[in-house]
Amino acid sequence: MTSHSPAAVAAAHPPPPDTGRARDLLLRELDGRWPADGRRLDRIARYALLPAGKFLRPVLLAESARAVGAGGAQIAPAALGVEFLHVGSLVHDDVIDGDELRRGRPSVMARHGVADAVVVGDALMMSMFAAVAECAERGLPAGRVVEAVRVLAAAGVDLCHGQLMEAELCGDAGCGLERYLAVSALKTGALFRAACLAGAVLGGGTPAQQRALRRYGEHLGSAFQMRDDLLPYVGDAGVTGKSGLSDLANRRPTFPLVVAHDRADRAGRRLLERVLSGAVPAAEALGAVAALLRRTGALAAAEERARQEVAAAKGCLAELPATSSRTLLERVADFSADRAR
Amino acid sequence: MTSHSPAAVAAAHPPPPDTGRARDLLLRELDGRWPADGRRLDRIARYALLPAGKFLRPVLLAESARAVGAGGAQIAPAALGVEFLHVGSLVHDDVIDGDELRRGRPSVMARHGVADAVVVGDALMMSMFAAVAECAERGLPAGRVVEAVRVLAAAGVDLCHGQLMEAELCGDAGCGLERYLAVSALKTGALFRAACLAGAVLGGGTPAQQRALRRYGEHLGSAFQMRDDLLPYVGDAGVTGKSGLSDLANRRPTFPLVVAHDRADRAGRRLLERVLSGAVPAAEALGAVAALLRRTGALAAAEERARQEVAAAKGCLAELPATSSRTLLERVADFSADRAR
Repeated sequence: MTSHSPAAVAAAHPPPPDTGRARDLLLRELDGRWPADGRRLDRIARYALLPAGKFLRPVLLAESARAVGAGGAQIAPAALGVEFLHVGSLVHDDVIDGDELRRGRPSVMARHGVADAVVVGDALMMSMFAAVAECAERGLPAGRVVEAVRVLAAAGVDLCHGQLMEAELCGDAGCGLERYLAVSALKTGALFRAACLAGAVLGGGTPAQQRALRRYGEHLGSAFQMRDDLLPYVGDAGVTGKSGLSDLANRRPTFPLVVAHDRADRAGRRLLERVLSGAVPAAEALGAVAALLRRTGALAAAEERARQEVAAAKGCLAELPATSSRTLLERVADFSADRAR
Repeated sequence: MTSHSPAAVAAAHPPPPDTGRARDLLLRELDGRWPADGRRLDRIARYALLPAGKFLRPVLLAESARAVGAGGAQIAPAALGVEFLHVGSLVHDDVIDGDELRRGRPSVMARHGVADAVVVGDALMMSMFAAVAECAERGLPAGRVVEAVRVLAAAGVDLCHGQLMEAELCGDAGCGLERYLAVSALKTGALFRAACLAGAVLGGGTPAQQRALRRYGEHLGSAFQMRDDLLPYVGDAGVTGKSGLSDLANRRPTFPLVVAHDRADRAGRRLLERVLSGAVPAAEALGAVAALLRRTGALAAAEERARQEVAAAKGCLAELPATSSRTLLERVADFSADRAR
């Protein structure tokens, strides 16, 4: 149990600065919901949820709500719910990709098999909606809760569209930035956007505030995915836990590769196409790909673009009153483009 | 497209008597929601949903709502939503069991692979909640809609608990009637119960009416699962599409087997245990198992028990005003225990 304490979690996955308090409160509530001595399903779900990762989405929902007026215990179930959906989709992702590792531990699939992983992922997704509905019992107006259900369900469907579209791009180094961004907006952006918008809705934000937080989440999601794609090339693999090999081995046209393909000469393009077609083993190709990303300036350009998304995200927050929550959302944005893991 | 017409569907899967009108209206709305020329996800989801099966759960939700006062277009999205959840869970079931056939056609897994089946099942489940939320846009009070979300999400989680528990019973011929019934109440009963209760909630039923419809759905679910388990032994395999082999091959302690184990002598028990342990191939064992079910009277006892559940279900309906919807719900109960497929 001690390894699941908020402190241990924070040590293993440094959260964005200043999110500690919101995180701790939410994690304490999460802890009681999936008891370690519960039924089999509860125990496996707990294994998937804890220790928590960055726990960004719950913090985004809770702070978006607080930034427009309401926060605290009334919002907490919905904030946790977004994490249930996110983790449920990760559990299913690992089934789809056959990934044996998640957050440095055996994935649910590796530990419990495909059948349990499919069922537990489903249960986590369902639990999101049960959790959101609880906000009405805690006194939030039912109309807001229904709207949050609608927003989050639509995001869940978008996420699925994004996954199928990503599979279609697989191996296609020349897919182009536009298609890359469209997939990223669905696969990653949808849930960031929905977390912020649902928070704004539940918190009773004005239509302008809801729009601002939705756009903030959208830009933040883009920045986050861009940084995720950049990590294998700019970070220390030992720190990031991303070896750079997994994206290449899965033949994913990630952000810097798409940018590089656009800028490279014929030989450079041919290299990227051969690697993503699977003709060259990922381990052999990594060095040459990294060199190409530097030589073409793709790495610098991709980092610059991620910073622009962060600036755009922060710009949206001007619509909100100056509160500690707004400051926190600004810092989360900075963190998203600079994080080393 | 013609093979998806309501008429063709009805011919392939005879619905319960008198549900034709409700079915047709709902199927028409479903047809427009998952366009045949839509995105890849929409097309695969459409393949999973149409032609529809018995389509019992949507009819139960819609007629439960109508039986307590409200019905029609305001309720339709939620009614369809229950089918989305049900079919999503079937798509995932086929991944888990490796089943290549569903309703006489290749399963989504067989046709599109594991990855697409996992993602499309997820999307169908999410779509349920988006659909339920729509009822508020169509004028139903938000408080009722939130309560329906809560009921249906809880049922979805129960369904997952039931699937894990069923896996634990696998191979255990002597698990006993009590444990069998507990699993059935979660795996099948939860969604029948939730469909009826959510209908009663959305329709604005009194607490007593909500209770009555919840219990009706519970008994109906039991009867339905019992009949499903009995079909391989009482029906014509050519008609039922259930060969009797799949349950045995999957080493499932189905209803008649559990009853037979309780009544059999030592040799009979040993036979059942050996078959469910996988020591005897299902195809070889089917005849001997069927003979044992008859000799011990287990078949007759199991059929009698299913009829009792139907009677209990119908008894619950006395709480409702005498309307054509109540009559229809009575007929659905009769159908559930007598159906030949």
